[in-house]
Amino acid sequence: MANDAYSKLMDLYSEYSIMGQVDMVIGWDQNTYMPPGAAEMRGVQSSIIGAMRHRAITSRKVKDLLKEASREKELTEVQRSSLRWLRREHERKSAVPEKLVMEMARLEPVSIQAWIKARRENDFRQFLPILEKVFELRSKMAEHLGFAKTPYDALLEDFEPGMASGRADTILKGLRARLVPMVKRIVEEGGPVDDGPIRKGYSEKKQYEFGKQVLLDMGFDFNRGRMDTSAHPFTSGTYDDVRLTTRFDRKDLRPALFAFIHEGGHALYEQGLAKEFYGTPLGEAVSYGVHESQSRLWENQVGRSLPFWKHYAPFLRRTYPNMKSVRLEHLYRAFNMVRPSLIRVEADELTYNLHIMVRFEIEKGAMEGKVDLKDLPEVWDDCYERYLGITPPSVSQGCLQDIHWSMGLIGYFPTYSLGNLYAAQLMEAARRDLRDLDGSIEKGRFGTLLSWLRGNVHSKGRLYMAEDLMKRVTGKPLGEEAFISYMRTKFSDVYGLAL
Amino acid sequence: MANDAYSKLMDLYSEYSIMGQVDMVIGWDQNTYMPPGAAEMRGVQSSIIGAMRHRAITSRKVKDLLKEASREKELTEVQRSSLRWLRREHERKSAVPEKLVMEMARLEPVSIQAWIKARRENDFRQFLPILEKVFELRSKMAEHLGFAKTPYDALLEDFEPGMASGRADTILKGLRARLVPMVKRIVEEGGPVDDGPIRKGYSEKKQYEFGKQVLLDMGFDFNRGRMDTSAHPFTSGTYDDVRLTTRFDRKDLRPALFAFIHEGGHALYEQGLAKEFYGTPLGEAVSYGVHESQSRLWENQVGRSLPFWKHYAPFLRRTYPNMKSVRLEHLYRAFNMVRPSLIRVEADELTYNLHIMVRFEIEKGAMEGKVDLKDLPEVWDDCYERYLGITPPSVSQGCLQDIHWSMGLIGYFPTYSLGNLYAAQLMEAARRDLRDLDGSIEKGRFGTLLSWLRGNVHSKGRLYMAEDLMKRVTGKPLGEEAFISYMRTKFSDVYGLAL
Repeated sequence: MANDAYSKLMDLYSEYSIMGQVDMVIGWDQNTYMPPGAAEMRGVQSSIIGAMRHRAITSRKVKDLLKEASREKELTEVQRSSLRWLRREHERKSAVPEKLVMEMARLEPVSIQAWIKARRENDFRQFLPILEKVFELRSKMAEHLGFAKTPYDALLEDFEPGMASGRADTILKGLRARLVPMVKRIVEEGGPVDDGPIRKGYSEKKQYEFGKQVLLDMGFDFNRGRMDTSAHPFTSGTYDDVRLTTRFDRKDLRPALFAFIHEGGHALYEQGLAKEFYGTPLGEAVSYGVHESQSRLWENQVGRSLPFWKHYAPFLRRTYPNMKSVRLEHLYRAFNMVRPSLIRVEADELTYNLHIMVRFEIEKGAMEGKVDLKDLPEVWDDCYERYLGITPPSVSQGCLQDIHWSMGLIGYFPTYSLGNLYAAQLMEAARRDLRDLDGSIEKGRFGTLLSWLRGNVHSKGRLYMAEDLMKRVTGKPLGEEAFISYMRTKFSDVYGLAL
Repeated sequence: MANDAYSKLMDLYSEYSIMGQVDMVIGWDQNTYMPPGAAEMRGVQSSIIGAMRHRAITSRKVKDLLKEASREKELTEVQRSSLRWLRREHERKSAVPEKLVMEMARLEPVSIQAWIKARRENDFRQFLPILEKVFELRSKMAEHLGFAKTPYDALLEDFEPGMASGRADTILKGLRARLVPMVKRIVEEGGPVDDGPIRKGYSEKKQYEFGKQVLLDMGFDFNRGRMDTSAHPFTSGTYDDVRLTTRFDRKDLRPALFAFIHEGGHALYEQGLAKEFYGTPLGEAVSYGVHESQSRLWENQVGRSLPFWKHYAPFLRRTYPNMKSVRLEHLYRAFNMVRPSLIRVEADELTYNLHIMVRFEIEKGAMEGKVDLKDLPEVWDDCYERYLGITPPSVSQGCLQDIHWSMGLIGYFPTYSLGNLYAAQLMEAARRDLRDLDGSIEKGRFGTLLSWLRGNVHSKGRLYMAEDLMKRVTGKPLGEEAFISYMRTKFSDVYGLAL
């Protein structure tokens, strides 16, 4: 009987899950080929899908079946884990009143437009009332969801399930304490890095072909995916239909290339989910942090490594004749230049985490009533001064630079840094398990690394919670050690310092 | 109270309608940019949308609300018409058991594959059992739907609502009786037409630009639509998101150009639906025949007319230097060459309808048990001999040429010819209402024609049934007179015969 309830639940979940895939397809379309005039219609379509999915997961039927299924004792690990996710989804979606969900949905396009205008006009004051409204609605949402210590936890749970913000706090503060002096030393003693030779002219066609070759080498399956261009690079879709985008800068080959590799990492995760979990609660990525770990691992640990460029430097020189005389070491240093900067998305691998810290502290503080949003520009600038030693000359380049808060994405930012930490810890474990990983990378052979990630991370889907998965694969809970050690090794090398 | 029932019904219908739009977006994607490996997943996604829509429209709630709403006396014309369509949709979808719907859905990909293979191998026998199965399931469907005289009516109703096949029979037989001798005379006395000068080399880029300019001139709004390429030209989407495709033949500019104009006609209909009907039962095209009338009107009555080419011939000669010396009359004759041929999709405007007649008679006969599908190749060839005076040398070029039956589309073919008749009758009425229509076309100004179509056809949506709409706009029920008169005028001119 209960097993019957289980299979009924899985049938219901499969519709919920597959309608989510449909939403991804039309979302991809929206960001690539949709005619501009269709924006309003698309908004309606997406909200109808959202409403149908919401009704499906919060239905009385699901509630009753969950009760029935919970009485069953002899469930397999897969079944227990599936039920845990489904119950979590049901409870969280049921906890927030539909009225509030709709209010948030209606506010989103308005606040995005307001943010765009405020940023363009470099005017924080006009955005403030809407930003306050966004935080107010998210606070209400947190109240409905419930939390043990801080309302921030209720929001973080959407992006990094199972990680309380206290834990994130500890990890990220530990990270900050060690990064700030490291950055300071590099700035003061590291000497200049010349990235002139990689800022020449590059045709889009050649950049595309170069990126496509790297993606093929990484193991991206073009039969089950594709690549396009869009204003902001992203990856969308899952399993047999995974699509990534990039953008091109004709004067700098880094933006397109590292977006290819970064999005490629996300895409490999999605293409690597296990077929037997398709349409079930386990057939999805385990957390945003772990998803980000896959993009960061390929982008930074692989794509900015010396072995990687040992392989690709000759190909790069053949592709772009104007780079014929650039030396490998020069390339490697240029791709790993550290420079405190104002804009998060342009930051290097090391300082990137300090940008995240600023946002994490502010959004957490605001949710806890410790930061008044009226003071946001001053608080922001103060953090940048303390962590990065620089001060934004304007709010457009300061607290108005990110779209996230206008979209209601509060609790999202920490997953970027957690991703870096997961990535470093996973790479450390991969090096432990695989013989001569650098040797393979040097030959442009990524198959062993991909297989390792497939077996240990991708194919597991949501069978384990993120930190549990990490312990099983790396033998340790998540921490900053592996990342710090990786940073120290790399930047000691790049800057000739004993960090 | 009843008005409350009405508005509840409209809310429910709007979800049904908008999920249909979503299905169109992912259908367009499937035929343009979807990676090949995603086909199976896409099938699942589409069938989930289908199942959700089926459940929505056939629900007990809709049934009860329809009963409640029918008690209301003071409904407006729009409300009455909306309810009529919604009831029809509810009743037809409820009549067919879900098991049968699913059996048909499962058979479709199998039968399409079988048709592809049989056509490639020129082997009707291997396709016969599956074709019989398709007709068997459609017969069952017709039994469930119910019909007055012939099961064929139950199927035709899906494509040309309100038109009994008896009526279609009368119209199409009248048409055939007058077309067969006309074709015979042209073949015997018309003398040859030389289309050599329009079968040269044309780059895809130039063909694209030429077609795009024509679409812009026609009034297609690229802010609310787009164009792409696909294996078979089609139009998809509605209102602010209408997408058409074409294909290119580097040796012949006709396929791409006339596909642009034809699909453009479909697209203008969809872009011209009235905003106040969006998401309601009236916010859709009234029938397949009327839809086809819009594509045919633009493709043939406009796009193959002498005034049209008076305007575009200079542009054509500028675009393709190898056509510099082609005379206008030569162009006009080449675009209007009549030649009985084997393949429907390559047929000229006049003989096209005879291709349709063959299919209409056979599928109707098969549904009524008068044609045994075992004899299909012989029956087919016999019809071609009688109507067109030619005999297919193979089943691939004969009864296996169309995909329709393998997709279960029985009752669809007549709408192509009905479209031609609607188009001629509409164009006759437009000439009556508009001053110097040919003069405008000669100047490349299509605005008055488009406004007339918008006001009389597009913006009406489903407010009236197709024939009722025709009577209101043209003053007459649908008939073959206008088409015959149009054909006689044009081909007397082209061939110098008194037809």
